[in-house]
Amino acid sequence: MVTADALKQIVGDDWVVTADDQTAPYKIDSTPPSMMPKAAEHIIVVKPATSEEISQILKLANEELTPVYVRGGGTGMAGAAIPTRDGIVLSMERFDKIEEIDTRSLMAVAQAGVTLGDLLEAADEHNMSFPPHPGDEGAQLGGLVVCNAGGARAVKFGVMRNYVKGMEVVLPTGEIVTMGGKLLKCNTGLPLMHLIVDSEGILGVVTKVTLRLYPRFPGTATMVISYDDRNDAINTVPAILQAGVIPLAIEYMDREIAELTANYLGMTWPAQQGKAYLIVILSGSNEDEVYSQAELVADVCQKYNAIDTLMAERREEQSDILKIRSEVQSAVSPNADSLDTAVPPGDIGIFMAEVDKIAEKYNTKIPVVGHAGDGNLHHILMKDIADRGILDEIKLEIYDVVMKLGGTLTAEHGIGKKSIKLLDRYTDERQKQIMRDVKKAFDPNNILNPDTAIVP
Amino acid sequence: MVTADALKQIVGDDWVVTADDQTAPYKIDSTPPSMMPKAAEHIIVVKPATSEEISQILKLANEELTPVYVRGGGTGMAGAAIPTRDGIVLSMERFDKIEEIDTRSLMAVAQAGVTLGDLLEAADEHNMSFPPHPGDEGAQLGGLVVCNAGGARAVKFGVMRNYVKGMEVVLPTGEIVTMGGKLLKCNTGLPLMHLIVDSEGILGVVTKVTLRLYPRFPGTATMVISYDDRNDAINTVPAILQAGVIPLAIEYMDREIAELTANYLGMTWPAQQGKAYLIVILSGSNEDEVYSQAELVADVCQKYNAIDTLMAERREEQSDILKIRSEVQSAVSPNADSLDTAVPPGDIGIFMAEVDKIAEKYNTKIPVVGHAGDGNLHHILMKDIADRGILDEIKLEIYDVVMKLGGTLTAEHGIGKKSIKLLDRYTDERQKQIMRDVKKAFDPNNILNPDTAIVP
Repeated sequence: MVTADALKQIVGDDWVVTADDQTAPYKIDSTPPSMMPKAAEHIIVVKPATSEEISQILKLANEELTPVYVRGGGTGMAGAAIPTRDGIVLSMERFDKIEEIDTRSLMAVAQAGVTLGDLLEAADEHNMSFPPHPGDEGAQLGGLVVCNAGGARAVKFGVMRNYVKGMEVVLPTGEIVTMGGKLLKCNTGLPLMHLIVDSEGILGVVTKVTLRLYPRFPGTATMVISYDDRNDAINTVPAILQAGVIPLAIEYMDREIAELTANYLGMTWPAQQGKAYLIVILSGSNEDEVYSQAELVADVCQKYNAIDTLMAERREEQSDILKIRSEVQSAVSPNADSLDTAVPPGDIGIFMAEVDKIAEKYNTKIPVVGHAGDGNLHHILMKDIADRGILDEIKLEIYDVVMKLGGTLTAEHGIGKKSIKLLDRYTDERQKQIMRDVKKAFDPNNILNPDTAIVP
Repeated sequence: MVTADALKQIVGDDWVVTADDQTAPYKIDSTPPSMMPKAAEHIIVVKPATSEEISQILKLANEELTPVYVRGGGTGMAGAAIPTRDGIVLSMERFDKIEEIDTRSLMAVAQAGVTLGDLLEAADEHNMSFPPHPGDEGAQLGGLVVCNAGGARAVKFGVMRNYVKGMEVVLPTGEIVTMGGKLLKCNTGLPLMHLIVDSEGILGVVTKVTLRLYPRFPGTATMVISYDDRNDAINTVPAILQAGVIPLAIEYMDREIAELTANYLGMTWPAQQGKAYLIVILSGSNEDEVYSQAELVADVCQKYNAIDTLMAERREEQSDILKIRSEVQSAVSPNADSLDTAVPPGDIGIFMAEVDKIAEKYNTKIPVVGHAGDGNLHHILMKDIADRGILDEIKLEIYDVVMKLGGTLTAEHGIGKKSIKLLDRYTDERQKQIMRDVKKAFDPNNILNPDTAIVP
């Protein structure tokens, strides 16, 4: 095992932490507490400042077979960042520089420890935008990339993978390599960069990323559409898209979740009526364009029996609505679990109805919130379900419905350490073997984030 | 070596071809003839109809260590499909069924041998669209996916990778596996599907794909903007994007290439004036939206000294312009080589100027056409350059400029068999080793498309 002294030789005395009270925050992330894997006892936190230092740390860890856990913003919900074996937590907090906002190539080059919030701000200062919004703005870019984060605002331009154009990575064997660049097209041999995206930190330490930016769309608007009947809300979703409007986001919220979260934040949910809501975020090259899109959306919603339509145009109003939507997971905490399934977007109505039947069968309620335009729903399993000892049963019933609909167990949160058993259950043997072999190609001694994302 | 008889046992007598005159068309693709690798002599062409048949063929080939080359539309330009060792060509021509155009989930499910042309037509019939247009409409979906094709119309929503949501693959060891689905978000362990995208047919045989569709945008327009000075055209590109308009495509053409291609097709290039052209394809949720975008674009172009702006709105006019742009490679054939580099989009002006200097130094002309919005240019090296024996010199000088600008050797055509030496020259040893190990994880006996995309 690598010692604190050896690490101090690399990064200096000030950047190695061993005291229990100081390592404690590095032993948890944003996974629901009841689902969080238990951290190991003997953890050394190291805070390197350069890729060269990370290279030295990994070489040493690789020689001494010491597990290394990369730590970003700690906003992951699948326990991937939690150090489950005695070893090193490699915190990226000092990799916090945005190196460039390139307004000619519409690209950002930033160190991996930069937060989403800082990137959004820097882009805005340069009259650019970074469309996706995967929830917590404290998330770090490296984590967003290796988790292929999604969130709201993925309907139009997609998830993180679509934005990642280049990266610098320190491999578990210590080499510092670069992949891609400020390039919108790059087909040069097997796409290792796209393996790192969504690798959940098990293939390499991402130290720098190049992300595609978009212009700051001069026109934006956020609509909140109210329905008495959830099915009407759900059926509106494909109809909006079919009408030729591609919003940045089409989100769904139950009334109780919307109000609960607004209360939690000390805010007011703007819609007065209805039991089910769609939030539609529009963007365009000017205000007229957004108005005409909003009119089209309003027409479609009316056909599907919407009872009210609010449109927020001022930036603060819009960001208040997005904030309420983004903070749902915190507001319902501590819950027993938040699911992260996706089904074909056209089938979310069927899926919701099936989950309601399951809830009824077990005499409980399973509120739901989610990215309706993406088919990605978060069913929230409240604490009473765990207390009654029926959590696993209910989850498996829901997952079976998901698989029958051709869906996925985890749409955007990833497997982490939380869902290895599910991955095992629903993946064929050959693919599991290939995943293990790919891991070995990058990390022959399995030092980087063991127990994560791979069926052993 | 697997025999024709053994293959006939699997697919029936009618679907195995061995006569030289009948196998000849399977020994070439669309690579410039002077760059095309030489095919092996003894080739058996097999035309399976089901994934199960492919599984049996691969199991047999894997036992007998017989090379297998998957054949799509033969539109590749890097020689990937050419059988360079005695073995089997596995033609996908019977996998020609579109299984579903799902208008609720906005997805197409189609067999891998369906052509781009057929998909575009089917989408259109359902009032949907498939935005990208990687050139030749005879390309098959499987090929488009494993080559991560780009082409025009990738500026707004990206290259093929962004559209690929699910696939069925027969692995070289014979297992039939599925990845993804009609899912806009899917993070479940290492993203093997995104390794298959851009694997150039060396990791598995894609038999079925699920592709994201978009609505048929009610408004579309194609603008041709004329300039006297190429630099003005190039400088317009980032300015259009910064103005908040994201066209489907921003293409660049020299006058001589535009006229040459129009003549070759027996058509007329619509612009009368200027020496350099931008083609801008716009889409929107209605005609007003497209008009207002077009006005913005025209304003920007005027600021950058455009001398004329044409706008085509009728579908035929628009598709004529796109056709001239798409057929450039055929029109200039047989040329010595067509390069496929990309640089950061903001730097294409610098790049073009550097290539002009190289051309001047060698006392030749190097015309250029390309996807200006993507930074992806095709410099066309005419036959005289090869005749004078200076082809390799010129190419290496151009590649060195590309690398200095942080660009890539091949943006969309791929490595294939044509560019292995370049991949070798510009890739670090550790990444080359990982690529070999990944190949081995999928294909332990190296039967699938050997000599392609991997540095041995």
